[in-house]
Amino acid sequence: MSSSLKDVAARAGVSARTVSNVVNGSARVSTQTRQRVQEAIDELGYRPNLAARNLRAGRTGVIGLAIPELHSPYFGELAGLLVDEARRRSWTVIIDQTHGDAEAERRLLTGDGGRAMDGLIISPWALEAQEVATTARPLPVVLLGERSPQGLADRVAVDNVAAADEATTHLLALGRRRVAAIGLQPHLHNGTAEQRAEGYRSALRRAGVTPKPRWERSVTSLHRQDGARAMAELLDGDDGDTPDAVFAFTDELALGALHMAHARGLRVPDDLAVVGFDDIEDSRFSHPTLTTVSPDKRQIAERALQCLADRIYSPENEVPALDLTIPHRLVVRGSTGPGAQAH
Amino acid sequence: MSSSLKDVAARAGVSARTVSNVVNGSARVSTQTRQRVQEAIDELGYRPNLAARNLRAGRTGVIGLAIPELHSPYFGELAGLLVDEARRRSWTVIIDQTHGDAEAERRLLTGDGGRAMDGLIISPWALEAQEVATTARPLPVVLLGERSPQGLADRVAVDNVAAADEATTHLLALGRRRVAAIGLQPHLHNGTAEQRAEGYRSALRRAGVTPKPRWERSVTSLHRQDGARAMAELLDGDDGDTPDAVFAFTDELALGALHMAHARGLRVPDDLAVVGFDDIEDSRFSHPTLTTVSPDKRQIAERALQCLADRIYSPENEVPALDLTIPHRLVVRGSTGPGAQAH
Repeated sequence: MSSSLKDVAARAGVSARTVSNVVNGSARVSTQTRQRVQEAIDELGYRPNLAARNLRAGRTGVIGLAIPELHSPYFGELAGLLVDEARRRSWTVIIDQTHGDAEAERRLLTGDGGRAMDGLIISPWALEAQEVATTARPLPVVLLGERSPQGLADRVAVDNVAAADEATTHLLALGRRRVAAIGLQPHLHNGTAEQRAEGYRSALRRAGVTPKPRWERSVTSLHRQDGARAMAELLDGDDGDTPDAVFAFTDELALGALHMAHARGLRVPDDLAVVGFDDIEDSRFSHPTLTTVSPDKRQIAERALQCLADRIYSPENEVPALDLTIPHRLVVRGSTGPGAQAH
Repeated sequence: MSSSLKDVAARAGVSARTVSNVVNGSARVSTQTRQRVQEAIDELGYRPNLAARNLRAGRTGVIGLAIPELHSPYFGELAGLLVDEARRRSWTVIIDQTHGDAEAERRLLTGDGGRAMDGLIISPWALEAQEVATTARPLPVVLLGERSPQGLADRVAVDNVAAADEATTHLLALGRRRVAAIGLQPHLHNGTAEQRAEGYRSALRRAGVTPKPRWERSVTSLHRQDGARAMAELLDGDDGDTPDAVFAFTDELALGALHMAHARGLRVPDDLAVVGFDDIEDSRFSHPTLTTVSPDKRQIAERALQCLADRIYSPENEVPALDLTIPHRLVVRGSTGPGAQAH
């Protein structure tokens, strides 16, 4: 005998609507109520038929995921977490890879050629966040990253300015004064890069170090080869002006910089201390291991899908757009570890 | 004025069916004809309405992609290539992550809860290939990897035995004799691992080296931490029995082994030569850079989608199942480079 939603509601002493909210993962249920409903679900062995329920509600059970690059370790890890979390909520995921191309970013926003989706998660590189939010309407959309949709859609991001400031301050605290930055992208109007550059400069100024344009290296993309090239440019500078530390805006850039430092015979961290950003798995196994800013990627995935679930299952709530800041922490490893104190 | 398919056929002097085959990317058109049709398409500015055509033919324009792990660099790179190639063919991609779980591998095979797809690409870890092929029917399915569907479905793979033999022979040619292997997965009945172990052992035997069970290290997964742990086990062995070379079955395992070798103060390649498998981007930037077997990943993606296109657009052809072997090559880098000759 299979139990119904009403059975669960009766057992838990709540309304059917509340059970529905719990099953749909809505945030608008107190922890105590959620727990009581979950216990009733477990006791009765209730299994919601999501496909049928979606059909009745005019939903498709499909969400879109638009990611710049699947081959990049950061986005590969994040996409894996997002897909798992979507599956946990019984959503089917349509994936698209945009390579930061505006046309590609618009593809899923307009429903992928009429294909129906219940919502969309996108990490835009080319489009302005407001365009993303307005183009998607009425499709619920959650933006990942630093481009702010100014209250037009939910957004999940880390505090890039603060994180970059911490990373740079860590290098300064080691006694380093010639601290370079790798990863500016002036041609892209890339909000991430701009915010990380801002945090970098403010940390330098607070320490009484004047930022030098020569120490800020631009890149065309965010991969290892770009980091290696930028590091070579820094090392080819005048003697005495060579950096003794580098803050790279992604771990991939940092690993490329490490690679070039090795090739030029520099000791890391003794001659050159290095900090990255993203905490990709690789940074725990490189030689030396990489100090990095670690955003809570699991929480990014969970919160993004929670936002989407709330919009999809409780559209009548009309909650103002959320701007969620996900915690980060600086993980200190070998590339700024023992031996990194200036001497 | 927009041109029709018939206009293109008339201009190219071929049948409408042939134009359709070219547009759909079918392999069953000669290169010359394809070129003539493409010229006519370009001259007339013909733009096929794929969505409408799919609808008429009872197709959805959606394919499924079931990948074990998006966070693994190899599968991240491969998924990126597959998604790009699918988009080039105007297919929408439903992605699923199986983590090698049998139930998860079955999900898309049975049409994702009734959701219609035109075909499926899957890299099975848990299910036998024959089960994959028969469960999917009548859905066209292409298998990636070493599990052979025995003529029940198309398969795209590299020759793992030959590739592992080459990798091991390369280490033996450096004069190394205590060559270990990291990556066996006896509990998983993992075909990849078994084939790579077979190539490893046959290369040893041909060189007159008796394979030692102690040198064959099993792992629970294929990531860096597993490689580091297996390397530690090898180094904790009796003196005189410590390996002077390691063939790791994936680059991630090899990079974990490198990490542990560094931690134990070994010089790579002088004390320990290392070869990996996959040629992930990381292997070009590690310290030292990693010698590895490089499968042609782009060709894997292109051939897999070509197989799927042929099944979807020309089902009447009933071509016997294809078993495609994709080329690989050994890329020699620092981890077996100068300094690796035995001394």
